[in-house]
Amino acid sequence: MSAEPHFTRHAGAWNMLTVAVCMALLGCLQAQELQGHVSVILLGATGDLARKYLWQGLFQLYLEEAGKGHSFRFHGTALTSTKQGQEVIAKVLESLSCPRDTAPSRCAELKAQFQQLSEYHRLKTPEDYLALSKDIEARVQHEGLREAGRIFYFSVPPFAYAEIARSINSSCRPGPGAWLRVVLEKPFGRDHRSAQQLATELGSFFQEEEMYRVDHYLGKQVVAQILPFRDQNRKALDGLWNRHHVERVEIIMKETVDAEGRTSFYEEYGVIGDVLQNHLTEILMLVAMELPLNLSSSEAVLGHKLQAFQALRGLQRGSAVVGQYQAYRGQVRRELQKPDSFHSLTPTFAGVLVHIDNLRWEGVPFILMSGKALDERVGYVRILFKDQAYCAQSEKRWVPAQSHCLPQQIIFYIGHGELGGPAVLVSRNLFRPSLPSASWKEVEGQPGLRLFGRPLSDYYAYSPVREQDAYSILISRIFHRRKDSFITMENLLASWVFWTPLLDSLAHEVPRLYPGGAENGHLLDFEFSGSHLSFSQPPLEQLVLGPDSAPMPSDFQVLRAKYRDSPLISAWPEELIARLAGDIEAAAVQAVRRFGKFHLALSGGSSPVALFQQLAMGHYGFPWAHTHLWLVDERCVPLWDPESNFQGLQAHLLQHVRVPYYNVHPMPVHQRQRLCAEEDQGAQAYAKEISTVVTNSSFDLVLLGMGTDGHTASLFPQSPVGLDGKQLVVLTTSPSSPHRRMSLSLPVINRAHKVAVLVMGRMKREIAMLVSRVGREPRKWPISGVLPDSGQLVWYMDYDAFLG
Amino acid sequence: MSAEPHFTRHAGAWNMLTVAVCMALLGCLQAQELQGHVSVILLGATGDLARKYLWQGLFQLYLEEAGKGHSFRFHGTALTSTKQGQEVIAKVLESLSCPRDTAPSRCAELKAQFQQLSEYHRLKTPEDYLALSKDIEARVQHEGLREAGRIFYFSVPPFAYAEIARSINSSCRPGPGAWLRVVLEKPFGRDHRSAQQLATELGSFFQEEEMYRVDHYLGKQVVAQILPFRDQNRKALDGLWNRHHVERVEIIMKETVDAEGRTSFYEEYGVIGDVLQNHLTEILMLVAMELPLNLSSSEAVLGHKLQAFQALRGLQRGSAVVGQYQAYRGQVRRELQKPDSFHSLTPTFAGVLVHIDNLRWEGVPFILMSGKALDERVGYVRILFKDQAYCAQSEKRWVPAQSHCLPQQIIFYIGHGELGGPAVLVSRNLFRPSLPSASWKEVEGQPGLRLFGRPLSDYYAYSPVREQDAYSILISRIFHRRKDSFITMENLLASWVFWTPLLDSLAHEVPRLYPGGAENGHLLDFEFSGSHLSFSQPPLEQLVLGPDSAPMPSDFQVLRAKYRDSPLISAWPEELIARLAGDIEAAAVQAVRRFGKFHLALSGGSSPVALFQQLAMGHYGFPWAHTHLWLVDERCVPLWDPESNFQGLQAHLLQHVRVPYYNVHPMPVHQRQRLCAEEDQGAQAYAKEISTVVTNSSFDLVLLGMGTDGHTASLFPQSPVGLDGKQLVVLTTSPSSPHRRMSLSLPVINRAHKVAVLVMGRMKREIAMLVSRVGREPRKWPISGVLPDSGQLVWYMDYDAFLG
Repeated sequence: MSAEPHFTRHAGAWNMLTVAVCMALLGCLQAQELQGHVSVILLGATGDLARKYLWQGLFQLYLEEAGKGHSFRFHGTALTSTKQGQEVIAKVLESLSCPRDTAPSRCAELKAQFQQLSEYHRLKTPEDYLALSKDIEARVQHEGLREAGRIFYFSVPPFAYAEIARSINSSCRPGPGAWLRVVLEKPFGRDHRSAQQLATELGSFFQEEEMYRVDHYLGKQVVAQILPFRDQNRKALDGLWNRHHVERVEIIMKETVDAEGRTSFYEEYGVIGDVLQNHLTEILMLVAMELPLNLSSSEAVLGHKLQAFQALRGLQRGSAVVGQYQAYRGQVRRELQKPDSFHSLTPTFAGVLVHIDNLRWEGVPFILMSGKALDERVGYVRILFKDQAYCAQSEKRWVPAQSHCLPQQIIFYIGHGELGGPAVLVSRNLFRPSLPSASWKEVEGQPGLRLFGRPLSDYYAYSPVREQDAYSILISRIFHRRKDSFITMENLLASWVFWTPLLDSLAHEVPRLYPGGAENGHLLDFEFSGSHLSFSQPPLEQLVLGPDSAPMPSDFQVLRAKYRDSPLISAWPEELIARLAGDIEAAAVQAVRRFGKFHLALSGGSSPVALFQQLAMGHYGFPWAHTHLWLVDERCVPLWDPESNFQGLQAHLLQHVRVPYYNVHPMPVHQRQRLCAEEDQGAQAYAKEISTVVTNSSFDLVLLGMGTDGHTASLFPQSPVGLDGKQLVVLTTSPSSPHRRMSLSLPVINRAHKVAVLVMGRMKREIAMLVSRVGREPRKWPISGVLPDSGQLVWYMDYDAFLG
Repeated sequence: MSAEPHFTRHAGAWNMLTVAVCMALLGCLQAQELQGHVSVILLGATGDLARKYLWQGLFQLYLEEAGKGHSFRFHGTALTSTKQGQEVIAKVLESLSCPRDTAPSRCAELKAQFQQLSEYHRLKTPEDYLALSKDIEARVQHEGLREAGRIFYFSVPPFAYAEIARSINSSCRPGPGAWLRVVLEKPFGRDHRSAQQLATELGSFFQEEEMYRVDHYLGKQVVAQILPFRDQNRKALDGLWNRHHVERVEIIMKETVDAEGRTSFYEEYGVIGDVLQNHLTEILMLVAMELPLNLSSSEAVLGHKLQAFQALRGLQRGSAVVGQYQAYRGQVRRELQKPDSFHSLTPTFAGVLVHIDNLRWEGVPFILMSGKALDERVGYVRILFKDQAYCAQSEKRWVPAQSHCLPQQIIFYIGHGELGGPAVLVSRNLFRPSLPSASWKEVEGQPGLRLFGRPLSDYYAYSPVREQDAYSILISRIFHRRKDSFITMENLLASWVFWTPLLDSLAHEVPRLYPGGAENGHLLDFEFSGSHLSFSQPPLEQLVLGPDSAPMPSDFQVLRAKYRDSPLISAWPEELIARLAGDIEAAAVQAVRRFGKFHLALSGGSSPVALFQQLAMGHYGFPWAHTHLWLVDERCVPLWDPESNFQGLQAHLLQHVRVPYYNVHPMPVHQRQRLCAEEDQGAQAYAKEISTVVTNSSFDLVLLGMGTDGHTASLFPQSPVGLDGKQLVVLTTSPSSPHRRMSLSLPVINRAHKVAVLVMGRMKREIAMLVSRVGREPRKWPISGVLPDSGQLVWYMDYDAFLG
């Protein structure tokens, strides 16, 4: 017997079956070259997901792979008693379906084979795991097989993950030379912290390459086709897939069902955690990422995807609109036994505007939207191209397949909706796409059907020859180690880094209530301007103020008064900034008209950011080409350091307007690789630059702030320099880090034609009160020394700072 | 009699009439306060334009103004004999029409009054002018009136302008205290030079404020309404009228007629001179200009208009597509008696893409289009707003007046077309516009009528209560000195400055032939990408090359060879630039991957401009954020001087990509207000910067050019510095101005990892041939000294330079 070759030594049931399946189904050649034995352990095998999709996926795997050299065994496990479990599994296995063209008798045969390879175990204690492991090893040895690996599919709630992982790791790993793969199902945390925690926990039991985190959307046929489509149509898409041609991208998943019966889950995750953070974000990445040269490399795909994550612009409160269907709160109260006073803030609808800050996508809006209780069930990705054509003929003469003036779009139709199934659509006036003809066929005409503004006949439309379930596809990919169809830890954390700030900022927002279904009307329509998203319809009800309410912005007009004997302008922040920006523009226009240029010295810090943004947008008349920008003060860090005042100016203003390079005057805090070294004479050089370029060293406008200690510019209380004397620019020391600073001096500030002091926020209230009363004591409160020799001083304070 | 007040002393015919008209028509109060006498002299009074529009306009003026204090007399003049002229005029005056509501008997009365005030003169010799002047003076004196002024309306061909102007100036000016207004009709020249000449000529006879250049489009009711509309809807438009919200602007004038019978004129002017340079450009300005605070100030309006002209981006060959209807050449041959071999290149169709480089309009395409023999007659301005909404409901549930997902547009419908007359349309989902209700009324519904993709019912639509002819409106505005309804000389020349380069570049282009009418199909559709416009359909016929034709680009592939023992890449310019840009990007990606940054040193001059543009567009993977830009050489001029190499880099590359400020390294040629002063040690400072920032002073890539004298960088033959030695940066002297230069030295160039030499154009052929044969003799030919110590040298030459 020992002379016989290894692979035929034990012609056990597995091998016989393999041969049978192979011959019957696949006619393959390598049936006899057994590559090893694979055990699939389905945890939670009696649960919903398993019964609905996973067993079928395993059967599919068996049908596809059994003939190709591996032998299999499938272990369904759960906490249920063996008897009960076996009954459930038997029922599930009986209901499996074969590929469409299989004859019924053949199907019965195949199912019988699969049933023979499948068994139920109760898996509860560490001992159970050990027993399972021993059992697998014994069988493998007994039959003379080599163990190839084990797949553990976690179809269990996340709270059970850690315990199971510990048991697998300690008691159920395969021996050396065989691989372990564990398959995890979302949710993977509720925010960055919890995801990180989960990752750390699991990371103590498994290697990252052993973990397959499932996002079943990546297994949906049309989603899985996005990258191959981009690859196979490179020639046509190369020039189109960018900000010059793409008008917008919509990534949408609409549901008609609501969350009834699932509110305990839903209360934890909401629509963002349930759909946007995972499914829609993954699709976004497939659309936006740079296309690797070689799609067959999982590393390249994953690497490019991660790069696209890096380019996502951070989300802010204004990036999203959220809603909640009216019945939700009642459902929550009922299902979670909450009192009538309980108001859930969980969004069941969200629209989010995403921007990607790289050269390919800069400025292109990516709209992500999902919700429950909407008017239809549909999922799609729509890439709408810019209309950059003018058609010389009257519209009624346009021929749809030829006219470039009709919409040009590519739609990955994930499923449902009016089309009723997955499809890829490309406008006929765009290009004829190439899709693998073995697996995709042209969609048959459906007269009267309109999609995205055009009749179906306006599109090249393809649907899968054979519809496949996402889980079947993913189970096959796990087996083939296609890690790019799964969520790596880096990918997962990058996604949470992106979504968590929005979730945090929404935590106390009241979502807009919507009735549900077609009655929603235009209530949930939203629109964007820049990075800001808002509902198109104003809220239906006005907030009614109670007797103790704080005053509302509209209750005040911009207020003018005096402060330290100079004009004071006070308003709510938005109006204050608008007013200040307007005043600066007016000063600029006047200066340029009179002198041909405008010298503006700006402070750093957080208050001016809103001002910079205001100036960058909307001030069309601002004479930027004739404006010189100077810094009031600077931290002794390199200019590219995020802490640098210049960097703030660059990010929020400079990159949006056209100030010529040579009109920008950063402070020379960084010379010869040193920061503010006395011997580099940076302060003197800046002073020299001022006196050379700025007539009489009198800036047209200096913008200052005021610190809670009464400092202004980087002139701090008790500063030995800069409060008087002849120096225009000085090196100073700040009580807070970074301590070294460069600053304009009080004397040069007071030579300016105009000085504006911007003071915002409740934190400034006390010092504002104090400074209103003191005399000119710059040594104690440097801000009190600001009083232009012959120029004008204006204070801009928001109500928080001024009225508290 | 002398005791009677002046204004009743001579109750002559004028005054009596005035009173009568006033009482009958206007019920005005100040009828008796005579403000003086106005003479209107219509030159070319028997011509087409005069008969069709001008006499009617004068009648209108009389009806409107006669009651308000001025007395009038109308002198029709021409070269025709007095008898003949009188007959023509009598006929014209008989056919005048009264305002719609005038009773026939009243109309006859008014016409009789006007006829009495109108007379014909033959006006040919200077003596005739003098006689006319005397006649006016005598009458005025005789009737005891004060002369207010004279209007001369030139309804004559432009070649007659100078002679008439001279005669008016010398013999027919009114006396002191009275004004002179001369009204001129287009064409005002055929290009900038001829317009300038005409302006100078007329300027020697008239003051600018005396001249009223008519563009009758400015008198069309809807066009005249553009600025008032913007003014009256400021609140709604304020946030919308800018690049953030406007998707595109179309300014269109389509004609169905062709040029038959007018080819002698048309051959001179073509569609651009006939329609685009004047009518469409004026409309463009009304849409694009900043809106003055006070519309009633002609100066403010004209000033703002002129500012908008300054912001127009220069047109290039690629800014336009041109066509010619098929029958045109035959018509020209017939009408101008040309031989069959004559091929007119005059465009009868043009589509032009205009960009306005200011903050309001940057990036917004303005499409100007006009043509003869098109499928419909229509004129309109269409402002299409960006679709920045997402509608959560299925499309079939959208309500047109509410859904922000349907098109939002404002249309100034100048006339004709399916609507059949002038109108202002605003999408109902945009805002309800305000128009003066006395002169504009809502358009009545026309079921089935669709305009710009939507049914008429989707718009708020207004049309004039009373349709008025453009000339009537303009004649009234001449009288009221509304100079902003006319073309000032500055305006005219600015328009020609804008159009002339395009006309020049089109001079030898063959326009696309089109059949005319509906048969044009999609042949004239065009589309744009960046600033480039092209027909959407490829040309129907391929050019067939004769035996002596030059090779076509498609005949060559990119050619690889050796040049001076280094790799040579040769191709047609476009491919060469694309290849070089690709190679630079690849080098950048590699350097950033390995070292985290990429040091690129660039040459100035004209060849790299195309390269810069190529890099600025389309190279999405270029790691700009990690790229340092250095200059290979610089002219000793301020950085902002148009001659500065840095300025070229700024305009064509820097302002389009995101290189951080501190990664840009201009050469310090301008310090302490001095240019390249030895004592400022600029070269040493740059060398220091290089050795500090660039590892080992080895640039990753240096881009060079080659001069016809064999110079490279700013290293010229026989240069005493920079060809060897230790200096990294040197000051050199160029044989051409500006002579002083700063340049990298050959040694630092040869330390680079890669050196690319770009050589383009036929002019370089001889030196390229020569340099291919010489040894390493940098003193004679500095380029021959380029040979990196351990890096790689690649030559990029286009076929013109390489193959001649």
